[in-house]
Amino acid sequence: MSARGVFVVFEGGDGVGKSTQVEQLCTALAPTGREVVRTFEPGDSVLGAKIRRLVLDPETGDLAPRAEALLYAADKAQHLHAVVRPALARGAVVVCDRYVDSMLAYQGAGRVLAEAEVEQVARWATEDLRPDLTVLLDVDPRRAVHTKVAKDRLEAAGETFHARARASFLALAAREPARYLVLDARRTVEDLAAVVSARVRALLEDGTGPGLSEVSGRLAP
Amino acid sequence: MSARGVFVVFEGGDGVGKSTQVEQLCTALAPTGREVVRTFEPGDSVLGAKIRRLVLDPETGDLAPRAEALLYAADKAQHLHAVVRPALARGAVVVCDRYVDSMLAYQGAGRVLAEAEVEQVARWATEDLRPDLTVLLDVDPRRAVHTKVAKDRLEAAGETFHARARASFLALAAREPARYLVLDARRTVEDLAAVVSARVRALLEDGTGPGLSEVSGRLAP
Repeated sequence: MSARGVFVVFEGGDGVGKSTQVEQLCTALAPTGREVVRTFEPGDSVLGAKIRRLVLDPETGDLAPRAEALLYAADKAQHLHAVVRPALARGAVVVCDRYVDSMLAYQGAGRVLAEAEVEQVARWATEDLRPDLTVLLDVDPRRAVHTKVAKDRLEAAGETFHARARASFLALAAREPARYLVLDARRTVEDLAAVVSARVRALLEDGTGPGLSEVSGRLAP
Repeated sequence: MSARGVFVVFEGGDGVGKSTQVEQLCTALAPTGREVVRTFEPGDSVLGAKIRRLVLDPETGDLAPRAEALLYAADKAQHLHAVVRPALARGAVVVCDRYVDSMLAYQGAGRVLAEAEVEQVARWATEDLRPDLTVLLDVDPRRAVHTKVAKDRLEAAGETFHARARASFLALAAREPARYLVLDARRTVEDLAAVVSARVRALLEDGTGPGLSEVSGRLAP
């Protein structure tokens, strides 16, 4: 029986240590012999990289909030199609830095668009493919500023924005607790890595049945 | 009392004479003294032109159907935001070559995505702004091939595809007959132009009340 793919996502604010934990998990999975695909959103496809440049290009000028959300949704649709689904179909473990929750948390925190509408678009874009496990690295944004970059971003966007994004991440996790692992991001790198790795290994062990990553939905009419 | 903007759209298959009729209408409106904004979809904004290049670029490779639909929706959101709404707010007559119906007819004719879902995305992108008048230049695709370009496109895509697109255009018109003017595209240029111009002038005459172009909707939750 061939193993089912497993889809693991890391979510959380800037500077909480997501990429470090992605790295740690990929290293921890190496001895299992499973193919591990490390990826990220937004931008990890040929189209995605172009969309990201397009959103950030000053020449694009004043971007309509709906246009921005739709571009990020297009990036997700292509990333699923070109990277995530093929890897899951091969039986790989896909480890992704940010996914739908980040889009919802940040678009929602901007308070321009209705969160439920953005969620509907994001779910349609991804055919409602939900991760088998989402690791949320949670911390009060005022305590998360370990790096100069994170500090600058926090100050540029305003603390309220980041506090709202954090509340969105936590609310999404509270909706589906079985699919989430919410961890205090201030724990040590090794401590966090050990908890995540144990949880993912448990998933791999019962990974021969149809996983959550097989669930595919359509936009409600 | 300042005049309300009026939003007129031309729809129909390739080679039916939309751009000729757009031109004729703009010329016919010149003596009214109203500002006339001639525009088109997809692609008539800085972002739109880039999105269009991105969709057509062979380097983009295999494009997910949902990603393509979302990119076209983003183009529409930005076109509304940057071009159509500001012009309507100034009281202009906006004459647009293709709009939401073309997206629905062609995405629907491809039969990959559910039409109702694509419509929901397109309506959200455009905040459900509907034209005051949509002129549908209708003709059996097999009779529309006046030009070499149209002939080549028809053959490349297959007659069935164009027959389905035509059926979608007609179905959209049948849903809201008061907002549509469906004309046999085989009538002479002058004849068509006279009918369209008379209808648009009638719209301009009672254009001081809140027009349909003021209606703004949200995606149903």
